[in-house]
Amino acid sequence: MTKLQELEGLIIPIRDDTTSGAAEIALQAINVFRHLMSDPLPDDPAEVRKLLVEATKALVGAQPAMAPLFHLGNTVLQATKDARSTGELAALCDQALEKFELQLCNSASMIADHVFDLIPAGELVFAYSFSSTVVSSLLHARSQRKFFRAVCTEARPSMEGRKLATMLTSAGLEVIHTFDTAMGLVLPNCRVAFMGCDCIARPGIVNKVGSWLLALACRELNIPLYALAGTEKFVTDERLFEFEDHERPGNEVWEEAPPGVRVLNKQFELIPFSWIAGLVTEHGILQEEDVEQYVSRLEVHEALRIEGAFAS
Amino acid sequence: MTKLQELEGLIIPIRDDTTSGAAEIALQAINVFRHLMSDPLPDDPAEVRKLLVEATKALVGAQPAMAPLFHLGNTVLQATKDARSTGELAALCDQALEKFELQLCNSASMIADHVFDLIPAGELVFAYSFSSTVVSSLLHARSQRKFFRAVCTEARPSMEGRKLATMLTSAGLEVIHTFDTAMGLVLPNCRVAFMGCDCIARPGIVNKVGSWLLALACRELNIPLYALAGTEKFVTDERLFEFEDHERPGNEVWEEAPPGVRVLNKQFELIPFSWIAGLVTEHGILQEEDVEQYVSRLEVHEALRIEGAFAS
Repeated sequence: MTKLQELEGLIIPIRDDTTSGAAEIALQAINVFRHLMSDPLPDDPAEVRKLLVEATKALVGAQPAMAPLFHLGNTVLQATKDARSTGELAALCDQALEKFELQLCNSASMIADHVFDLIPAGELVFAYSFSSTVVSSLLHARSQRKFFRAVCTEARPSMEGRKLATMLTSAGLEVIHTFDTAMGLVLPNCRVAFMGCDCIARPGIVNKVGSWLLALACRELNIPLYALAGTEKFVTDERLFEFEDHERPGNEVWEEAPPGVRVLNKQFELIPFSWIAGLVTEHGILQEEDVEQYVSRLEVHEALRIEGAFAS
Repeated sequence: MTKLQELEGLIIPIRDDTTSGAAEIALQAINVFRHLMSDPLPDDPAEVRKLLVEATKALVGAQPAMAPLFHLGNTVLQATKDARSTGELAALCDQALEKFELQLCNSASMIADHVFDLIPAGELVFAYSFSSTVVSSLLHARSQRKFFRAVCTEARPSMEGRKLATMLTSAGLEVIHTFDTAMGLVLPNCRVAFMGCDCIARPGIVNKVGSWLLALACRELNIPLYALAGTEKFVTDERLFEFEDHERPGNEVWEEAPPGVRVLNKQFELIPFSWIAGLVTEHGILQEEDVEQYVSRLEVHEALRIEGAFAS
């Protein structure tokens, strides 16, 4: 089996993972790169580079809303672009992967420190969908002896809210769980709300469908909603809209819908930055005016560029 | 088997019906009364009257958010209160049931006439949860050769949105269906939204959970949302809050939730009248200021009164 054929098989679990957050999936993607870069590799570094480009495109195509996959690939491609031999390329790739992994973990831990201060002791905290950053932040606060209860909803159709509830309760948190539209009933009792985030650019924040309603309800009820995300979630404005074309099979929503019913199964949506209380990153809590500096400094490898309105 | 024992069995399907609208369930309740009033009946009219009070209380207790059940019982009790014999009582009861049934059907047809004018030809129309009044209104418009497409969501946890989609598509309407939180994605393409309603009083409108989020989103997006309901949905302010104490089993939301997770399964919630574009009744489209006259003229049989804050 060629490396390219292997790649196809490695991408499938990432493409079909509808319950993990972006940071979690990026960690899986690091292993895809590690696997592809294991011996034997072609002697010609150009061939290896081509493999890395293919792997990056496949990963980004598998989860186009998840910015960390793009950055992981971009980082690998940038780090290896001047390598003159396969050996040098492999070493540079390995370094880049290790650095990226470390950064993901460090970000999560620094975000958790910031979130600790945002949780009011003894109160109800709302969490939406599934984000490993939200989970690690809530569990960190709990382990630091801050007591609070969490409320979460199921997050149809993938039900990753059940995964969230299960993880939080296993760690000793009291959890209240309900269906998604009951947000309107439970939010008035919550003092703060958290969600993850898949990518950010000037037009706003992309996250799991349901986040728009959550943000709207929080704004109406004066509940601060924070999005938690490492700065590896920033992308160019063009890339932000890549999620729009992607639709999951309708039968994941309704297995036996009557023939005349068109079942829509979109996964992600855009939330105006001004509707949230802040973006909690490893560099602190960012506001809308901070987005510019992170987006404008992005350097994108030529293989991954999207040409604005003419993007294919 | 005594009539009271029979009653218990007749109430169960009404109590466990989580997918029918209030008007539809009221039609089932008419049959409960008819069945109870069939021969043989006790000679003493006081005993028959007691049976009717018990039946009314059981029906109202089974679906405390559904005003038509209350009015049906109230109408029967008021109509029969002066009867001097079982024969007279049975005749008065039968008359009242027939009148109520006719009124429900007439209301639905007059509401459908008003709704016809609210549907913009060729556009997308959003409908939430399940209401027989909404279904009959949309199908009436379609049968009058108005062409439009309907969008609906599943309405977790009972999924009565699938019943709605199935009924609309069987009648030849094109239907787009998605999960509930995708409202934020589909509503911007809709020109009008409709929902049913379970009861109305001065504090607002009670309807299936999710209606609050729908109304909030419609307000945000400037989409007129109409609640469709016959005036048999008006109740006293005290009775309006009866729905609050009622919770369905958590396992209907999550069958095998981990022990530390408390699963909340409320069915109804309150929506401010000012968030909707109007209440479409058999008397036309009502606004918030019209509620007063309908609520203030309600006459409640003594067996059904709730004493304000001291309600048991």
